[in-house]
Amino acid sequence: MKLLGGAWTPNIVWRLSGDPRRFSELRDDIPRISAKVLSARLRALEETGVVTRSVISTSPPSVEYALTELGRELVPVIQAILNVGTKLAHRRAAATR
Amino acid sequence: MKLLGGAWTPNIVWRLSGDPRRFSELRDDIPRISAKVLSARLRALEETGVVTRSVISTSPPSVEYALTELGRELVPVIQAILNVGTKLAHRRAAATR
Repeated sequence: MKLLGGAWTPNIVWRLSGDPRRFSELRDDIPRISAKVLSARLRALEETGVVTRSVISTSPPSVEYALTELGRELVPVIQAILNVGTKLAHRRAAATR
Repeated sequence: MKLLGGAWTPNIVWRLSGDPRRFSELRDDIPRISAKVLSARLRALEETGVVTRSVISTSPPSVEYALTELGRELVPVIQAILNVGTKLAHRRAAATR
């Protein structure tokens, strides 16, 4: 159950659903996340096998994160959560009209 | 994204996927959750429309919680998270053999 646990974890997996992203790109994608929390979440995602971390031989070297094949299976799950959330929000808005 | 946010929220939705449950039953189902956290999570789930709360005219009266129709759409989502988690755990176990 903890796979998507921890604030921002779904957001990070969602941002990686396109191409691999660098740490700085992920910070730009999710402005309200601190570097410390982003590092911790990425480390946890790496440990569980949802994300891979690769060092890119740029100058200076940079680090890129990507979803693993199994990690990619979480993308439709997050989409489903977003869909239910949107329907609930519409229902609440309709109830207050 | 916050719909299933907060520790224990997925566990509570999962426990309600069968029949409606009383507060005390949910505490038995999830022994490590405190009454305070369970109350807070149920209130949040009620506010977002995932759960309904009904007072049952037992003596003394009791309170029952149930998934709404939209709340029920989260059950296959949680099942999908559990499936990916299990596959990842097997992969990690295989990697350490």
